[in-house]
Amino acid sequence: MASNKIKVGIVGGTGYTGVELLRLLALHPHVELMVITSRGEAGLPVADMFPSLRGYIDLAFSDPATADYSACDVVFFATPHGVAMSQAQALLDANVKIIDLAADFRLQDTAVFEQWYKMPHSCPQILNEAVYGLPEINRAQIKSAKVVGNPGCYPTTVLLGLAPLLEQGLVNLSVPIIADSKSGVSGAGRKAEVATLFAESSDSLKAYGVSGHRHHPEIHAQLSKLAGDSFQLIFVPHLIPMIRGMLSTLYVKLSDKAASVDIQALYESRYQDERFVDVLPAGKLPETRSVRGSNILRLALQKQDAAGYLTVLVVQDNLVKGAAGQAVQNMNIMFGIEEHCGLAIVPLLP
Amino acid sequence: MASNKIKVGIVGGTGYTGVELLRLLALHPHVELMVITSRGEAGLPVADMFPSLRGYIDLAFSDPATADYSACDVVFFATPHGVAMSQAQALLDANVKIIDLAADFRLQDTAVFEQWYKMPHSCPQILNEAVYGLPEINRAQIKSAKVVGNPGCYPTTVLLGLAPLLEQGLVNLSVPIIADSKSGVSGAGRKAEVATLFAESSDSLKAYGVSGHRHHPEIHAQLSKLAGDSFQLIFVPHLIPMIRGMLSTLYVKLSDKAASVDIQALYESRYQDERFVDVLPAGKLPETRSVRGSNILRLALQKQDAAGYLTVLVVQDNLVKGAAGQAVQNMNIMFGIEEHCGLAIVPLLP
Amino acid sequence: MASNKIKVGIVGGTGYTGVELLRLLALHPHVELMVITSRGEAGLPVADMFPSLRGYIDLAFSDPATADYSACDVVFFATPHGVAMSQAQALLDANVKIIDLAADFRLQDTAVFEQWYKMPHSCPQILNEAVYGLPEINRAQIKSAKVVGNPGCYPTTVLLGLAPLLEQGLVNLSVPIIADSKSGVSGAGRKAEVATLFAESSDSLKAYGVSGHRHHPEIHAQLSKLAGDSFQLIFVPHLIPMIRGMLSTLYVKLSDKAASVDIQALYESRYQDERFVDVLPAGKLPETRSVRGSNILRLALQKQDAAGYLTVLVVQDNLVKGAAGQAVQNMNIMFGIEEHCGLAIVPLLP
Amino acid sequence: MASNKIKVGIVGGTGYTGVELLRLLALHPHVELMVITSRGEAGLPVADMFPSLRGYIDLAFSDPATADYSACDVVFFATPHGVAMSQAQALLDANVKIIDLAADFRLQDTAVFEQWYKMPHSCPQILNEAVYGLPEINRAQIKSAKVVGNPGCYPTTVLLGLAPLLEQGLVNLSVPIIADSKSGVSGAGRKAEVATLFAESSDSLKAYGVSGHRHHPEIHAQLSKLAGDSFQLIFVPHLIPMIRGMLSTLYVKLSDKAASVDIQALYESRYQDERFVDVLPAGKLPETRSVRGSNILRLALQKQDAAGYLTVLVVQDNLVKGAAGQAVQNMNIMFGIEEHCGLAIVPLLP
Repeated sequence: MASNKIKVGIVGGTGYTGVELLRLLALHPHVELMVITSRGEAGLPVADMFPSLRGYIDLAFSDPATADYSACDVVFFATPHGVAMSQAQALLDANVKIIDLAADFRLQDTAVFEQWYKMPHSCPQILNEAVYGLPEINRAQIKSAKVVGNPGCYPTTVLLGLAPLLEQGLVNLSVPIIADSKSGVSGAGRKAEVATLFAESSDSLKAYGVSGHRHHPEIHAQLSKLAGDSFQLIFVPHLIPMIRGMLSTLYVKLSDKAASVDIQALYESRYQDERFVDVLPAGKLPETRSVRGSNILRLALQKQDAAGYLTVLVVQDNLVKGAAGQAVQNMNIMFGIEEHCGLAIVPLLP
Repeated sequence: MASNKIKVGIVGGTGYTGVELLRLLALHPHVELMVITSRGEAGLPVADMFPSLRGYIDLAFSDPATADYSACDVVFFATPHGVAMSQAQALLDANVKIIDLAADFRLQDTAVFEQWYKMPHSCPQILNEAVYGLPEINRAQIKSAKVVGNPGCYPTTVLLGLAPLLEQGLVNLSVPIIADSKSGVSGAGRKAEVATLFAESSDSLKAYGVSGHRHHPEIHAQLSKLAGDSFQLIFVPHLIPMIRGMLSTLYVKLSDKAASVDIQALYESRYQDERFVDVLPAGKLPETRSVRGSNILRLALQKQDAAGYLTVLVVQDNLVKGAAGQAVQNMNIMFGIEEHCGLAIVPLLP
Repeated sequence: MASNKIKVGIVGGTGYTGVELLRLLALHPHVELMVITSRGEAGLPVADMFPSLRGYIDLAFSDPATADYSACDVVFFATPHGVAMSQAQALLDANVKIIDLAADFRLQDTAVFEQWYKMPHSCPQILNEAVYGLPEINRAQIKSAKVVGNPGCYPTTVLLGLAPLLEQGLVNLSVPIIADSKSGVSGAGRKAEVATLFAESSDSLKAYGVSGHRHHPEIHAQLSKLAGDSFQLIFVPHLIPMIRGMLSTLYVKLSDKAASVDIQALYESRYQDERFVDVLPAGKLPETRSVRGSNILRLALQKQDAAGYLTVLVVQDNLVKGAAGQAVQNMNIMFGIEEHCGLAIVPLLP
Repeated sequence: MASNKIKVGIVGGTGYTGVELLRLLALHPHVELMVITSRGEAGLPVADMFPSLRGYIDLAFSDPATADYSACDVVFFATPHGVAMSQAQALLDANVKIIDLAADFRLQDTAVFEQWYKMPHSCPQILNEAVYGLPEINRAQIKSAKVVGNPGCYPTTVLLGLAPLLEQGLVNLSVPIIADSKSGVSGAGRKAEVATLFAESSDSLKAYGVSGHRHHPEIHAQLSKLAGDSFQLIFVPHLIPMIRGMLSTLYVKLSDKAASVDIQALYESRYQDERFVDVLPAGKLPETRSVRGSNILRLALQKQDAAGYLTVLVVQDNLVKGAAGQAVQNMNIMFGIEEHCGLAIVPLLP
C-alpha cells in the first residue's frame, strides 16, 4: 500500500452506518483501511456478515478491547452514543483524528447533552474544540479540526434547507419553524427490535418521537447560530416504509424583507459551488430515490403566497449525506483532498 | 332476495373505490347488489377482474350506456369527476338516491369547482341540495339527503382532526393551519401511469401537488364552516410507498382561550359516541396499519407547549373511511339502518 | 353472554398467529373469549399492544402461570413448540379441547419430532390420538378430535395442492416431488431478529433452510399417507418482501395413468364442496393478494406437456388458512357449527 | 474530450435498461456519450426525466429519426424487440458496433424468433454472425464481434448457474431441468400498465407466463449448446414485490458420473477468474440485495442427497448483470479494455 494513503480505522462496523462507510471507503482511492472493530463479531470476516462486500473488503472484525488505532490517521466512530467520547483523548494523544457519527460531539451544551442522552459528557474540553461537521456551513473549521461531530440525519436536511434564508434574515421568527420530517427505516439502525421488523413497519406509516426527539436540540442549536435570534422549532419525525431516504418538509414564514428577494435565485447562488447540494429548478419536486446511494441532497422551494410562507422540500439518503457520506466528505476536507473523492456515485434509480 | 333490502347500483366498478365498495357491500346484510357498470369491461364477470371477489360477487359488468338503475334505491358513483352530475337528474327523477365518491357534489361554489376540475358544473340546483357526506359533522342532513357528495380522503382526515377545536373556537386563525398529509399509492387510483408503477414509487418518497391540490379548496371550504372566520390553509400531500393508509399531521396555533381547556378530554368527549372515530389515549401515536381495511379513523394529540401549537395526528384507510367505507356509512344513515352495518371489520394487522 | 357460546382460551397471544386468532374470534358469533395469556405482557390490555383491536377486544393478557382454563371449551396454543404438549394432559383432564398452532401434534413419529425440534415428545399417548387438522382431508376425524395439531403453513399449500392427484395415483413417484415455496415475512413470527428487520428483508429475496426445514418431514409424512408409496421430496422455502401471503409452486411428474384424465376437471370436482379451496379456471394464475386476510386457498394447474409434468400453483394467506383461520375452521368442525362461521371474509384487495 | 475514448450512442434511453446504461456509462473513464434517442422525449434533457442523473449527464434526448450515429464506435439498443435489427445494417456499414439489449440477436433460429416475437427476422445474415453476449461462456467470440445480442435476464442466471455442470456432463438429462425464477418488478420495464402499478404488485406474489415465456427458447437453446444433448426445460417465472433483483432456483438431477465429483470445488474452479461470478462458500445462501446495483452474480449449491438432485441458487441485479451491466461488460471486451472498467461498484446494502 502506498504510504501516502489516509490510514483509517472504524469503531463499530456492524451497523448500517458502519457498512455504509465500508461501501464508500472500499473504493476510495486515497484510503487504506486498517482496522474495523466489533464487540460481538471479533474474528469474523467483514464480508461474511455483509456479503455485498465480498471481494472488496478483506478485513475481519477486531476486538475493540485490543484494537490498536495508533497507526491510523483518522478513526470513524459508527457506535452508540457515548463510545467516542470515552476514547477521544487517547486517540488525540496518538495524533489520530476523530469523526464521530454518533452524537458525542454534536451538542456544545453539555447540560442539553445530558438531558437527551442520559449520560454525562466525559470530555467537555475536547467537545469545546470539536467542529460540527456540516461542510456547506462549517467547511473552514472542518479543514483544521481534529474532532468532528458528524451531524444527525434530520439536522442535515433542516439546516441545509433553511441556511440560505436564515443567513439573510429572511425568516419571520415570531412564528415557529416547522419541520415535518420523514425517514426510511434504516435510520433506526441494525438492531433487533420488534417495531422495525418488516411485518411491523412495512405497508404502514406513523409519526414517532412527537413529544421529543434527540435531533430537536441539535437542529435548534445549529439553526440558532444561523438565525442569530430566538425562535420556536416544531419537529415531527415520521417512519416511512422504505429502506433508505429522508424527506423534510419545512414550513417557515418569510420576513417582510423577503418580499423583494428572488428566493429561488438566492438558493441557487448560495449552493452554486456545492457539489452535494442540488437546488431543483422552480416547479420541480424532489423524490428520495433521486439520491439513493449518493451523497447528494436535493431541495426545492414552493411559496405559499397567501399565507406568506415558504415550503422547502429537502431529500437525502439518510445513510449517505445523512451519515457515512458526509463523514467521508468531512475526512476529505480534513486531509486536504478533493471533497468529492470516493463520493462520485450516480444515484441508483430505479 | 328479500324485498326489504336496499337495492344498490354502482357506476364505475373497476377502480379501487369500486372494488372496495364491492368488498364491503358483498357482506352487507341489508344490501342487494343490482348492477355494476364499466365502460371498458362490459360483459366481464366482476370476479374475473378482481379474483378476491370470487364466490362473493356473481354479477358481470354492465354497459353504462344501457344500464338500468330504475330498480335501484341508491346508486354509488365510483367514477371520474363529472360523471355523476351528468346522470343525477335522471336518477332523482326515478327516485334513486345518489352517493358520489368523486368531487361533483363536494364544492358548493361552482366557480371554485370549475377552476379546479376544469369543467362547468352541469346541475348547480342539485348541488345546492346535496349534502357533504361527513357523518360525524353532518349526520342530520345526511339522513334526509337525496344526493351525498362523499368527502375526499384528505379532507376527511383534516376535518375530523380539527373539528373539535374549531367548533369551540380554540384555534388562533391569524397563523395558517398547516396540513402535512401522507397517502398510500392506492389514492392515485387504478390507472396505468408511469409515476405510480411499483418500480417508480416503491422505496421512495415525495411530495406532490405542492403548488395546488384539488382537495385544498374542499378542505378550506369545510373548515371555514367550522371556523366561522377567515384563515389561511397550507396543505402539502405526500406519496408514501404503501398500498393503503393515510396520515395527516396537522399543525395549529391554539387560541388564548385554549389555555384553560383540557384538549384531550375535549376530543374524547366530542367523539365518544362515534363508532368510527377513535381518540387514542394521551401519549399514544397512531399508525396507519391499525386501521387497515376498516372504516375507523384514529387520532392523537400532542401539544407543542413552548410554541403554543397543537399537533394532531390522524390516520385512516384512504379507501375505506377515506372513500368506500364512508360511502357505505352514508348509505346506512340515508336508509335508516345501523350506521356500522357492514362496517364491523377488525383492521388487518399485521 | 349466552351460555351456548364456545368458551375460548388462547395461550400466547402476542405473536402474529395470536393476534390473528383475536381478529377472527372477535367477530365470531358463537365464541366467547375467556382468557388470553402472555408471559411477558401479563396485565397489559390486549388492545394496547395491538391497537387494531381497540373496541373489539377488552381483555388484558393473563399470566400463564396462574391462568385458569377450566371454564374453557377449547384452548388454542399460539406458542413456541413444546408448550402445548406440556399442558395437554391437564386440559384434557378438565375436558378442554386443544388446538395447537405449533408443531407438537403434527408429527406422529416422535423420533422425527425429536430430530427436528430438539426436544423429546412429552405425551406420545396424546399425540397418538391427535388429529392432523387439515379439514379438506381429515374432516371426519377432526369432528370428534379432542386434540388437533393445526398444520404448518407450507404443508397446507403442498398437501391441498397435490391431494387430488395423489388420491388418484396420478403422480409418477419415481422422480422427486419438488415444492418451491415462497412466504411473506410474517411467517417468521413477531420476534426481534435482525434478519427480518425491514431494512434487511425489504426489496430483497432469498431462499432459506435449503439444507433442511422443519416442514419437510411434516409434508413428507402427510403426502405419504395420500401417496401410499415411497417417494422423494425436495422442498425449498423462500422469503419474500411482503407481510402476508404464501405461494407454493409444485412440480410433479404425472403417471402414465394421468394421460387419460382431465386434471382440471378432477381438481374442480375434488374441491367443489370446499368453501375454502378455490380451483381457478384453466389459464388463470393465482396471486397472494387475492386471498389476503381470508381463509381461502386458491390454486391453478399448468401442464408442461413435453416434460410430462404438472405445475400446481397454490396461494394462501399464511396467517389465515396457513395458521389462525384454519385453526378456527377446525374449531367450528369440532363444535359442530357451520365451518365458515367467523371466516366469511372478503380478501383485502388492493 | 480525449479522442481515444469509446464514442457511444444509446437508442431508446427512457426505459430502465436505458437509464441504467446511463448510470454506468456516466462514470466510465473510457466512454464519451455522443447521443441518446427517444421517440417520445426528443429535446428533453435526460436529467429532467431522470433527476438521479443531474450533474452527470448533460445530453438531451435526440429524435431517432434524425439521430446520427456515424461518429459512434458502438451503439446500444435499449429498445423494444425489432428496432435493432431494422437499423443494424446501416450501422455496420458505418463501421459502428452494436450491442442489442433486446432479443433481436439472441435466438439463432429465426423460426423460433418469429414464433415468440411475432415478427419476421429482418436480417438473418447479420444474426448469423452475431454473438450471444455472455462473457463467462463466449468471451473469445465477443472480443471480435461486431454485433452482440445481450442475454435476457433470466437466461443469464440459468446459464451461469448450470454451465459448470453441463460442461462436465454431470446432469442427468433424462429428467427435466427445472428453473423456478423470481424477478423484481423493474424487469417488466417502464411502461404504464395496470399490472405493475404499486398498488397491484406490492405486498403480493404471483407466477406469470407459466404457459410460455420468451426466455424459455433462449435458455433452452443456450443450455443445449452446453449440454450437447436433448433435454426438457421447465421454466416458471414469478413476480416479486421488489424493484431490482432476480433469484433463480434451479433443480437438476445429477448424473452417475457426478457422484465422484466435488461439485462445490468444480464451481469455484470454473469461476475463479471471473470477477463477476461469485461462488458462495458451502452452507451460505445468496440474497438479491447482496448484488443490488452491481454487475455481480452470486450463486450457491445445495445437494439434495436422497433425491440425487442438486439445487443451484443464483442471484443477480436484473438491470445490471441481467441487462445494462452485462452490456457494458461486453463493450469493454469488444474494445479491449479492462472487463470491469466502469463496473467496480460495491452493491448497495441495505
